[in-house]
Amino acid sequence: MNLILFDPAELDRPLLREDARARHLLEVLRCGAGVRFDAGVVNGPRGKGWITGEDATGLRLAFEWGAPPPPIDPIDLILGLPRPQTARRLLRELASLGVRRMDFVRTEKGEPSYAGSRLWSTGEWRRHLRDGVEQAFCTRLPAVEWGRALPEAVGGAPAGGIRLALDNYEAVVPLSRWRPEGWEGVRLAIGGERGWSGEERDLLRAAGYCLVGLGERVLRQETAALAAVVMVKVRLGWI
Amino acid sequence: MNLILFDPAELDRPLLREDARARHLLEVLRCGAGVRFDAGVVNGPRGKGWITGEDATGLRLAFEWGAPPPPIDPIDLILGLPRPQTARRLLRELASLGVRRMDFVRTEKGEPSYAGSRLWSTGEWRRHLRDGVEQAFCTRLPAVEWGRALPEAVGGAPAGGIRLALDNYEAVVPLSRWRPEGWEGVRLAIGGERGWSGEERDLLRAAGYCLVGLGERVLRQETAALAAVVMVKVRLGWI
Repeated sequence: MNLILFDPAELDRPLLREDARARHLLEVLRCGAGVRFDAGVVNGPRGKGWITGEDATGLRLAFEWGAPPPPIDPIDLILGLPRPQTARRLLRELASLGVRRMDFVRTEKGEPSYAGSRLWSTGEWRRHLRDGVEQAFCTRLPAVEWGRALPEAVGGAPAGGIRLALDNYEAVVPLSRWRPEGWEGVRLAIGGERGWSGEERDLLRAAGYCLVGLGERVLRQETAALAAVVMVKVRLGWI
Repeated sequence: MNLILFDPAELDRPLLREDARARHLLEVLRCGAGVRFDAGVVNGPRGKGWITGEDATGLRLAFEWGAPPPPIDPIDLILGLPRPQTARRLLRELASLGVRRMDFVRTEKGEPSYAGSRLWSTGEWRRHLRDGVEQAFCTRLPAVEWGRALPEAVGGAPAGGIRLALDNYEAVVPLSRWRPEGWEGVRLAIGGERGWSGEERDLLRAAGYCLVGLGERVLRQETAALAAVVMVKVRLGWI
């Protein structure tokens, strides 16, 4: 945790002792009364916080807020639903790299049971997303959705913007040499562990997605997703 | 396993049933006699293999070899020794992305006990490296070393080539905007989880390393290493 995030509604309440953030302040940062730590409001400003007092139930905190971080890069991802362990990594690391949205979708070759994981049903996913944003010293949480079918996710796309889909088999251009036109944002689709079906490729092409590749080497979904986001950011001058 | 790797010395011997590759062939790929699977010789050609017979102890295999994969990209990494769980990921994913060498070094802010992990002493690291290369459909294993101190690793560098060190605090240029000169190869140094000490920065600069950054967002070592390798490859047209 490079920065500790708070929801706006939490700012006026004491921070309960059993909250992981309270333990982090007391046990890892060893923040005595008045010592400043880096804090942020979810989707709001960054600033400093400090402990003004404590009692049996929790810590009283005060804050001083500065400017909000720059707007989030408009990269919206469609990701074939991964196994939960991979999803945890993607949530954390893509939130660290900075994307606007992650839409985890059901695909034909995907494993349908992944959408029923406790990662999603218990809300555990929020913790990984927040970890990634805190690591990156940012306050802006990507929007996350899961369990929709690919056609819905593709159909709901706003008009305009760049649309790319990673594909090992029918890519027409390497992503690294792709030249962007149109800047409202990038929608990038990345298949699940077994990739796209033929029908899904047709659907993506019909929805205006250009099939792009990452070169000769075949990468796991988690490696491919990070590599693709980095390439898009480099191309658009966002990193 | 997209491709199954064999050491040259293994090609004339039966593959033991308890070998993970035999189990993969029989249980995952369900390769009956004569059915072809993708195979490779470590640091040698790719081709096809098939089962010609089996008995109680193992499988007899035959092979037909084609061309070797292209030479490995000359990217040599110096990595501050990570905690073992991070090292497993780095070994696998950097081998998938394709680098020539990984030198895991002791640094001043690093945790010395990481060098004593069973990951290194038992040779378990080889499995992760091989997994990554097999995933990428390649045969070339990166060279790996661990436990040296940073000054030794920096001192042993051959003359010439590009030298870069990632640094969050004293970077002089973003890696994404770095323009390469000199093409014999790239040496890229990435600190451990707590980064470089002031003395290490001086050492790196004296050894000709340019301190480069990855932008405003602070990334974990594992995310930073993958992002940096992708950027170098894009810049040099290797991906």
